[in-house]
Amino acid sequence: MSLQDNFRKAMRSYVYSVSILSSVSENNEYHAITVSSVTSVSIDPPSILVCINKTAGIHDSIKRGTKYCINLLTKTHEDLSNICSNYEEEKNRFLSDQWDLSDTPFLKDAQANIFCEVDQLIEYHTHTIVIGKVIESKNLDAINTLTYVDGSYE
Amino acid sequence: MSLQDNFRKAMRSYVYSVSILSSVSENNEYHAITVSSVTSVSIDPPSILVCINKTAGIHDSIKRGTKYCINLLTKTHEDLSNICSNYEEEKNRFLSDQWDLSDTPFLKDAQANIFCEVDQLIEYHTHTIVIGKVIESKNLDAINTLTYVDGSYE
Repeated sequence: MSLQDNFRKAMRSYVYSVSILSSVSENNEYHAITVSSVTSVSIDPPSILVCINKTAGIHDSIKRGTKYCINLLTKTHEDLSNICSNYEEEKNRFLSDQWDLSDTPFLKDAQANIFCEVDQLIEYHTHTIVIGKVIESKNLDAINTLTYVDGSYE
Repeated sequence: MSLQDNFRKAMRSYVYSVSILSSVSENNEYHAITVSSVTSVSIDPPSILVCINKTAGIHDSIKRGTKYCINLLTKTHEDLSNICSNYEEEKNRFLSDQWDLSDTPFLKDAQANIFCEVDQLIEYHTHTIVIGKVIESKNLDAINTLTYVDGSYE
């Protein structure tokens, strides 16, 4: 197997929590993309990072100062996770009334909502690492987080 | 609750895979630290990032070109995870014969071993984001990954 194939295979045994990053751009375009690469960076200031593929529809709308929400999903959100990770479903991402679209779009019934403002963008080959300062966050008390491992939801 | 407390609380509902980052420094000091912030960045080149607190014993030994291993743990490794996250156990981290110390130290019975070389270091307040290029990786076939959520192993 190639180095890449071996790496992909090893990463399949990581258990990921599944989130959707959502935002509205300056020209009023709504974006939502399923992401698995969310991790906190520092607590002071509260900050979080996510890696975005440069080919993703949302990529070019993310600039320093852009506001967005990281919506950690519950096990009830498998369908929405699929919609937000499938290019062909790009027009269908905000159809559900689970979304609050009054300001920065966010998922009303998420496990957690972490509202951020982009602080730094670091390009790395095919991806951009987006570091956000956390503005506000909230969460459900009962934990029912959607995870993904070895190609399947759990 | 403060912004920080709210953020900490929201992050408790993330399910993390638990890994140990291990390395040997130029002056032959062995380091191993439990980390939860591992995420892949790009597939081409295969790369992975991890956030390291600047106060961690290993921090200053990590430089561009440093070789290290990300050892994804199995559910059998709870004790080792505790040893490698407790400052007072710093002298006890390599006592077990689970370690191969012949070159870059690695855990022989890990769920996955991802051998890397530091490519970029990005400072962000209390932490450094370490981006590594993957040199080699291997994994066990049966998945039994150690995870951590809401303050407990799972």
